[in-house]
Amino acid sequence: MAPDDSSSRLLSQDEALRARALKVIPGGMWGHMNVARLPPGYPQFFRSASGCRLRDMAGTEYVDLMCGYGPIVLGYGDPDVEAAATAQRGRGDLMTGPAECQIELAELVVETIPHADWVLFAKNGTDATTACVTIARAGTQRRKVLVAKGSYHGAAPWCTPSLAGVTAEDRAHILHFDYNDVPSLELAADEAGCDLAAVLVTAFKHDVRRHQEAPTPAFTHAVRRICNAAGAALILDDVRAGFRLHTGGSWEPYGVRPDLCAWSKAIANGHPLAAVTGTDRFRDAAQQVYVTGSFWCSAVPMAAAIATIKKLRATGAIATMEAMGHRLRDGLEAQARAHDIRLRQTGPVQMPMIMFEDDPDFVLGYRFVQEALRRGAYMHPWHNMFLCAAHQADDIDRVLEATNEALKQVAALVDRRQSAKAVQ
Amino acid sequence: MAPDDSSSRLLSQDEALRARALKVIPGGMWGHMNVARLPPGYPQFFRSASGCRLRDMAGTEYVDLMCGYGPIVLGYGDPDVEAAATAQRGRGDLMTGPAECQIELAELVVETIPHADWVLFAKNGTDATTACVTIARAGTQRRKVLVAKGSYHGAAPWCTPSLAGVTAEDRAHILHFDYNDVPSLELAADEAGCDLAAVLVTAFKHDVRRHQEAPTPAFTHAVRRICNAAGAALILDDVRAGFRLHTGGSWEPYGVRPDLCAWSKAIANGHPLAAVTGTDRFRDAAQQVYVTGSFWCSAVPMAAAIATIKKLRATGAIATMEAMGHRLRDGLEAQARAHDIRLRQTGPVQMPMIMFEDDPDFVLGYRFVQEALRRGAYMHPWHNMFLCAAHQADDIDRVLEATNEALKQVAALVDRRQSAKAVQ
Repeated sequence: MAPDDSSSRLLSQDEALRARALKVIPGGMWGHMNVARLPPGYPQFFRSASGCRLRDMAGTEYVDLMCGYGPIVLGYGDPDVEAAATAQRGRGDLMTGPAECQIELAELVVETIPHADWVLFAKNGTDATTACVTIARAGTQRRKVLVAKGSYHGAAPWCTPSLAGVTAEDRAHILHFDYNDVPSLELAADEAGCDLAAVLVTAFKHDVRRHQEAPTPAFTHAVRRICNAAGAALILDDVRAGFRLHTGGSWEPYGVRPDLCAWSKAIANGHPLAAVTGTDRFRDAAQQVYVTGSFWCSAVPMAAAIATIKKLRATGAIATMEAMGHRLRDGLEAQARAHDIRLRQTGPVQMPMIMFEDDPDFVLGYRFVQEALRRGAYMHPWHNMFLCAAHQADDIDRVLEATNEALKQVAALVDRRQSAKAVQ
Repeated sequence: MAPDDSSSRLLSQDEALRARALKVIPGGMWGHMNVARLPPGYPQFFRSASGCRLRDMAGTEYVDLMCGYGPIVLGYGDPDVEAAATAQRGRGDLMTGPAECQIELAELVVETIPHADWVLFAKNGTDATTACVTIARAGTQRRKVLVAKGSYHGAAPWCTPSLAGVTAEDRAHILHFDYNDVPSLELAADEAGCDLAAVLVTAFKHDVRRHQEAPTPAFTHAVRRICNAAGAALILDDVRAGFRLHTGGSWEPYGVRPDLCAWSKAIANGHPLAAVTGTDRFRDAAQQVYVTGSFWCSAVPMAAAIATIKKLRATGAIATMEAMGHRLRDGLEAQARAHDIRLRQTGPVQMPMIMFEDDPDFVLGYRFVQEALRRGAYMHPWHNMFLCAAHQADDIDRVLEATNEALKQVAALVDRRQSAKAVQ
């Protein structure tokens, strides 16, 4: 389908920037925001963002279902968060020591998160997961860490998905199990034996390119039981899901609490912050471990985090996201039925993964998101998406208009494939 | 000496915050900004900062010679940097992809730094040094990295100064040499043999609790020669010194250029940003390595970095810092002579280390900084300090008034110690 005038202008501006980027950045872009990972047609650069809307370089507006890959939980430029950030910025951000708001935030975190007896702050999710592992090792005087196969825990050598530049020793003490598979977890724990320092788990199985899975209650309790029996730390990696499912931590509904927990992304509605929370058992270990960074005491992101957490608690933002998530899921399900498309929607409704059955190469998935994108809905074909509290019914309905047309295109594609098969 | 009223009010407010902190943060504070590392009397918390001045919780003002441990290179709240940050903030900060300013900054970095054919951005200095090591390993398909004994390269398990929670494997491929000692460097390179991936060096020997040392020209050239001979990467860790000594990189005056370089701290005048620059030889490796973080494409720190680098280049800010650094060094030298104190000042003048001869336990050093602090100069007894372009002659003169009184106290202390020795 030929692009219309506006998308051709979009490509020319965005592509001009990409051509410049290619000269000065390896591959033009690094990491998870590199649209080389997506089908053609996605803008790489954005001009502005507000609420749940993004505007690309050509001025085309999208309802954003990625929310910056998670950090935006209340909406871009949330007025309460930005007012708090602005007020702190007028006093000081990075100084030669922290501001008072560091303690206010620490107290708020400890008050909000049931397992948390203490907290320390960092900048990246990877900082937080790495610190959790190091604190668990220091506290237990052991080395082995059990990690679910395929789980993403950050981009440091011990956990990054690409093995380029990684040595075998970087992962010498990492053992694997299958998420939600208790026997495989027990087997890995046996293998670690008396050297088991920690079990590290994501809030749910949110691996890329896979249908998402909630943890089974049996699995969550088995993780806790195995850690208790071994004297190991249960580390919850709540970087991706934290503050979007439950303000007290994503395993609260299961009645299972971690010893250590890694947070980042949504904690400050887009301002750069990460956190490690823990129980008193690991307080001394956390004090012994030397972790720091030049900007870890910066005050503006902390002021933003206070406003974010308070607003999440006060406004029922998570319930709003759930309601909008259900509206999207139900709408899509009805559309898929109408178009006779086998869509599979997994994950918590506010962190939806939308894939097609029997679509291992994402032929349908790519067509779907491309057609939705052309109609103003920014979706991802193989990474969980993120709703925020700024998504309102009319935003979701705008997405659903786009997906309805997109599913029509997918249905036509399926028909053509089936006709071609019948001819063969 | 009894604290006067104002410092007693200071302690009560600051100490009340510390008592609250102790409950919710392990040890009350983590990392390099923990004033438990300093003698009593230092405020832990700050109310505000502007230019080169800090204000503590009691409102007491200090001329800050730490500048946030380095990031503040133009002055707190520099109007040009903040105007650029505010303008970008109005459009968007963290979005679902980068803003145009990411490419403008990348082009500016590549234009400003002679060895840089490309750049990628991160959040922490540790992100940048770790990425350099990983990229060097990916590019050379080797593992060994030579590091100077005692050099600080960050706070990840492979490099953090504390061994709590660190496994032997985390450092399996790190070999050591002595900074400025060419034979020890050659020995370490021989030991690494054909597995030598990189030599990682700080811009100068800026270890804590030690007199600082400039790299000898012979050493800088030996590092380059050894890397060339072995096909290894010369990684310059310019996190601490970058953009304060030379906008093109701290080894430019030596005519020695790195293959990979880690930057952070001063790059955006306090906004959270780090960078890796490299040569075309390592472009493919940089593309293969998967490094990323939730906030690595945030636009506000990039807009701040553009304004910072442009202002550093346009205003001769480094020359200003050098002039003020000389004013401080010369003034202190004259004071030390007048008080017959054996002071030793090392490091680049704009990153001064001020210690006392024959003071291994910092008895004189601690007294000196405590007395200076009480008189409005925030100094550090055993970490290099940082001047910024906002330090003007009257700020330095205010520091010198404080140090003159402080040196009087130190001289009295020396006299009492010598009398006590004579009596024994």
